[in-house]
Amino acid sequence: MKKIGIIGLGVVGEGTLSSLLKYRSLIKKRTALSFQVKTVCDINAGRKKLVPYSKIAFTTKAEDIINDPEIDVVVELIGGIQPAKKFIIAALQKGKDVVTANKALLAREGKEIFARARDLGCNIGFEASVCGAIPLIKSISQGLVGCEVKCLHGILNGTTNYILSKMHKDGLTFSQALKEAQQKGYAEMKPDLDIAGKDTLHKLCILSYLSFGFWPDPDKLYTEGISRITPLDIAYTEEFSYRIKLLAIARKKGSSLSLRVHPTLIKADHPLAEVSSAFNGVWMDTYPAGELLFYGEGAGGVPTSSAIISDIVNVSLKAKMPLIKEEKLELGEISDLKTRFYIRFMALDRPGVLAEISRILSRHKVSIASVAQKERNKGKLVPIVMLTHETREEDLRKALAKIDDLEMIKGPSQSIRIEDI
Amino acid sequence: MKKIGIIGLGVVGEGTLSSLLKYRSLIKKRTALSFQVKTVCDINAGRKKLVPYSKIAFTTKAEDIINDPEIDVVVELIGGIQPAKKFIIAALQKGKDVVTANKALLAREGKEIFARARDLGCNIGFEASVCGAIPLIKSISQGLVGCEVKCLHGILNGTTNYILSKMHKDGLTFSQALKEAQQKGYAEMKPDLDIAGKDTLHKLCILSYLSFGFWPDPDKLYTEGISRITPLDIAYTEEFSYRIKLLAIARKKGSSLSLRVHPTLIKADHPLAEVSSAFNGVWMDTYPAGELLFYGEGAGGVPTSSAIISDIVNVSLKAKMPLIKEEKLELGEISDLKTRFYIRFMALDRPGVLAEISRILSRHKVSIASVAQKERNKGKLVPIVMLTHETREEDLRKALAKIDDLEMIKGPSQSIRIEDI
Repeated sequence: MKKIGIIGLGVVGEGTLSSLLKYRSLIKKRTALSFQVKTVCDINAGRKKLVPYSKIAFTTKAEDIINDPEIDVVVELIGGIQPAKKFIIAALQKGKDVVTANKALLAREGKEIFARARDLGCNIGFEASVCGAIPLIKSISQGLVGCEVKCLHGILNGTTNYILSKMHKDGLTFSQALKEAQQKGYAEMKPDLDIAGKDTLHKLCILSYLSFGFWPDPDKLYTEGISRITPLDIAYTEEFSYRIKLLAIARKKGSSLSLRVHPTLIKADHPLAEVSSAFNGVWMDTYPAGELLFYGEGAGGVPTSSAIISDIVNVSLKAKMPLIKEEKLELGEISDLKTRFYIRFMALDRPGVLAEISRILSRHKVSIASVAQKERNKGKLVPIVMLTHETREEDLRKALAKIDDLEMIKGPSQSIRIEDI
Repeated sequence: MKKIGIIGLGVVGEGTLSSLLKYRSLIKKRTALSFQVKTVCDINAGRKKLVPYSKIAFTTKAEDIINDPEIDVVVELIGGIQPAKKFIIAALQKGKDVVTANKALLAREGKEIFARARDLGCNIGFEASVCGAIPLIKSISQGLVGCEVKCLHGILNGTTNYILSKMHKDGLTFSQALKEAQQKGYAEMKPDLDIAGKDTLHKLCILSYLSFGFWPDPDKLYTEGISRITPLDIAYTEEFSYRIKLLAIARKKGSSLSLRVHPTLIKADHPLAEVSSAFNGVWMDTYPAGELLFYGEGAGGVPTSSAIISDIVNVSLKAKMPLIKEEKLELGEISDLKTRFYIRFMALDRPGVLAEISRILSRHKVSIASVAQKERNKGKLVPIVMLTHETREEDLRKALAKIDDLEMIKGPSQSIRIEDI
């Protein structure tokens, strides 16, 4: 009988507790393992009411779980850096296996935490830290153990995907879509971590470790959120048969690795473009397995509990942790990135505007693949939209700065990177 | 150092050999396991030329591998029931772990083979038997170990999906698309096992065991191929915003299980509808993990080698095999199935045809959701297409038989089931 302690009874904690109680006998039938949730901890004493049986102890002190010699597996679901890290290290030191959904912590301290776990002979399950219910971590570390990942494109955050899908489907502005996401519980009241791409970034760091054996410094990776996307951009990208998604992108070429998070145009008929609403999806190009897509619920207490349960089983079976040797790779700079761009200017509808913009772009070696300038609105502002050929990021930035300085251009230009996957 | 013997040097055998040699050091870095391909066997002595190093022994006798006490893992890649079964059982009896891609064998003899392996304390890896490169078997048995599968819809055969995608994209007839698939190597010269849905059926049997603990008798499951699908049906289903896919379907309700293989209409904007060309995709509705899609290469020597390598690692690490308790479930009869239908008749364009068809359908409790009868071609044949509401299969069959008997109806009616996923 494996005894479990759960620290943190928020949305995921509550979902995990209820799924564990519901599926105890199913899990026993499938794995011959018996589980018992012994103690549940939350700093908020009022959450005691979420514990359905009096046999399960409730405490507000994590130490009651960490120091309990009867508890085999500690499930950390409080999130954030501290005290989560302290709790996890303490549990490992007591010889307990740990299951965590804490992406922010692993992105920053994963290297140290995994090393400590290995030294102490304990296991860490972290399936729930990336893409909630999708068994992605196990798929990469076990199912694709003999594969090289060439590139990975991930929709890793349900909140931003919900907002972009709403903007696309219903023509809402960013603020309107955010408000609706908050009303429906898809976005938090303080949604900054999601909106600014930080949550996606944390997950990308974990995937970089799994796929390439490389722990990046999250603060050094280019990260751009979705708040600058307008209904106009959504409409134009649709016209060009593209869809805007907030993507985590990883590309390896030899010993050089590009890791970045930003809104991205992908072809509307690409399977990743169909990952809508709050769903997550990860597109991988690998060798020898080829192209793969994993799609499913990225968040929510009940779906995520599936990942946590599979980790509890896995660590209890003492399945070997993925032993990922660290690689020395060189991180590419965003200024050196070569990619195609969607660019948009708001210009006064005057003769010579397009010629002037084209001249500046050409002088900066930015070559144009297509242009859309439909509306005629003499003397007023009209959008000019272009898709470029492959361009060095730095060249484009310089060109856009020059264009933004033109008297006939109003407001800052828009630019969104395109990925041809 | 784990020593490996490969029996069967066809497309998958060759791909596996080349990937194993290419990724030996990557696998060692990731898993600390060292591999050596010791012996390769093929009944065709001419295939010796596919073995790149003289250090690797070549034989035409499988016994040279099975009886070699140095070999730890036997990889069976010859397909078919015998002698594959004999070889696998013999290898297990010698205490060797086995990796196989043989879906036809597992669908019929999996129950016995897994029981023997368990009794003998050996492991069997079979990731490559379903959906080639997609790590589906490990995802279901490990990543979703705490989940109930409510239903599963799978595009499990690349050949038929390629043909249907071609028909959809280029307006080809079934025979034209089949010919193209054969020319491009997506279909075999004797494609019957694929076209008639038998290959899909075999994979469905394995998924039934994994998802529900139920080994069905493949001969008792309803299986229908794609040769009756016409360009007219493709065009009409598109008009109704559906796509036709050959699906393996599994639905569990209480202790009753429906397992079947047939062409199916699914909504064109469903993620599964975007699984095109020779790709495979599996859509699962589970609790608590929710809806999941797995997408990737379903066949081909190189992609499939990824699954085989992950199995070699897995069985070598002596990872616990999924211990799936068998369940007593009741298989539903196709005649009792309640589903919606796409139906098409070729009728003489005469007054009263639609009224007569509608009358017969209504008398058999088949209720119509929408009708399309566009072309006017007085006195000639015109297609009449209908989508029904949920109908009992048997009622529909009786109604169609009556309608097919009408003097104004030419040729047999078409009917394709609709799945509302």
